[in-house]
Amino acid sequence: MSDTAYARTARTTPTRYRERATWEREEIHAVLDSTWICHLGFVVDGAPVVLPTIFARVGDRLYVHGSTGSRPLRAAGADEGMPVCVTVTLVDGLVLTKSAFNHSVNFRSVVAHGTAHQVTDPEELAVALDALVDQAVPGRSADVRAANAKELAATAVVRLVLDEVSAKTRDDGANDDEADRGLPHWSGVVPMRTAYGTPVPHPDSTAALPGYLAELG
Amino acid sequence: MSDTAYARTARTTPTRYRERATWEREEIHAVLDSTWICHLGFVVDGAPVVLPTIFARVGDRLYVHGSTGSRPLRAAGADEGMPVCVTVTLVDGLVLTKSAFNHSVNFRSVVAHGTAHQVTDPEELAVALDALVDQAVPGRSADVRAANAKELAATAVVRLVLDEVSAKTRDDGANDDEADRGLPHWSGVVPMRTAYGTPVPHPDSTAALPGYLAELG
Repeated sequence: MSDTAYARTARTTPTRYRERATWEREEIHAVLDSTWICHLGFVVDGAPVVLPTIFARVGDRLYVHGSTGSRPLRAAGADEGMPVCVTVTLVDGLVLTKSAFNHSVNFRSVVAHGTAHQVTDPEELAVALDALVDQAVPGRSADVRAANAKELAATAVVRLVLDEVSAKTRDDGANDDEADRGLPHWSGVVPMRTAYGTPVPHPDSTAALPGYLAELG
Repeated sequence: MSDTAYARTARTTPTRYRERATWEREEIHAVLDSTWICHLGFVVDGAPVVLPTIFARVGDRLYVHGSTGSRPLRAAGADEGMPVCVTVTLVDGLVLTKSAFNHSVNFRSVVAHGTAHQVTDPEELAVALDALVDQAVPGRSADVRAANAKELAATAVVRLVLDEVSAKTRDDGANDDEADRGLPHWSGVVPMRTAYGTPVPHPDSTAALPGYLAELG
């Protein structure tokens, strides 16, 4: 790979809409850093399994929380690892055109391929867990009781080094065929975003709302 | 399967948090009907691939738009089909506890396993395309130029019959250990939802905003 971009491979080079793809490290990291939910794909008995879970990026490493898929993830020992695909998607808008066919979606996505390894080193696991908390709520890991040894042992996290990875983005208006432009239908974009609501404290929670929660969104 | 529930199998029975799972048809359909983005998993040369795309539910069928993965999907002919996993996820809230370990997420998800087949019948394809448009914007398919034969031929849609499928839901507050309850950290839930912004018309669009767009959200 170059200093600024990940190397392209056959499976990170799309067959369609290639102009939407990028391998630039900064652009890929920016998409990853905009969310904290991923979809983790792996193979069990030849069949694909896709589970939603949380992730964090630390440099060129993705840490993926594996509890929802603990059976296969724990089977993937630290040495041999497990082939995975980690996909991160943000939906930014509905694109409505005058023809059904040209409808589209504005989005940002990252697809990372590779071999995931379970994190077994206690120090790396502690770093990964802090990162998982801070990916969703920056600053939160410094304002909680840290995991103890028993909790660390009960947590399955896998590491995927970013290497074979690309991002795709569509950020554009409605693209109708020339022949459709005079049709009377509404066309345009309906923006979308993930919105955070007002935090609801637990009855046990007597602390003032932390600044890092007031800033979410 | 019973009249009201899909049959449970080993891979639709979670190993953890089994109380969060359901196989009830109505509950699964309700989750599916709450969104229109899915993550489609399939296997290429033994490795998993997960791509975001749009889907629609029509009865017990999922129709999944395959253009982003057209290479493998077109390879999956109508007869043999392709093993897939279709996963749909809605994130409803961040759950912050006083310990790092007990942090959680409120969510609804559906995971469907099975063999997908490319839709080749023109009538079924037309139904599927209308459904794909209406899943995102109910009522829209009646207010566009319908796809012509050339456009239908250029569209890859696969069908997955819902059969081996389950939903998982967490909708709860912060669950701290008894020993952590007196800690001074904020705990509670930050609600989340997908929000639609104000529609932005294309310069060619002179129609008034349709009612079905005003009602989105």
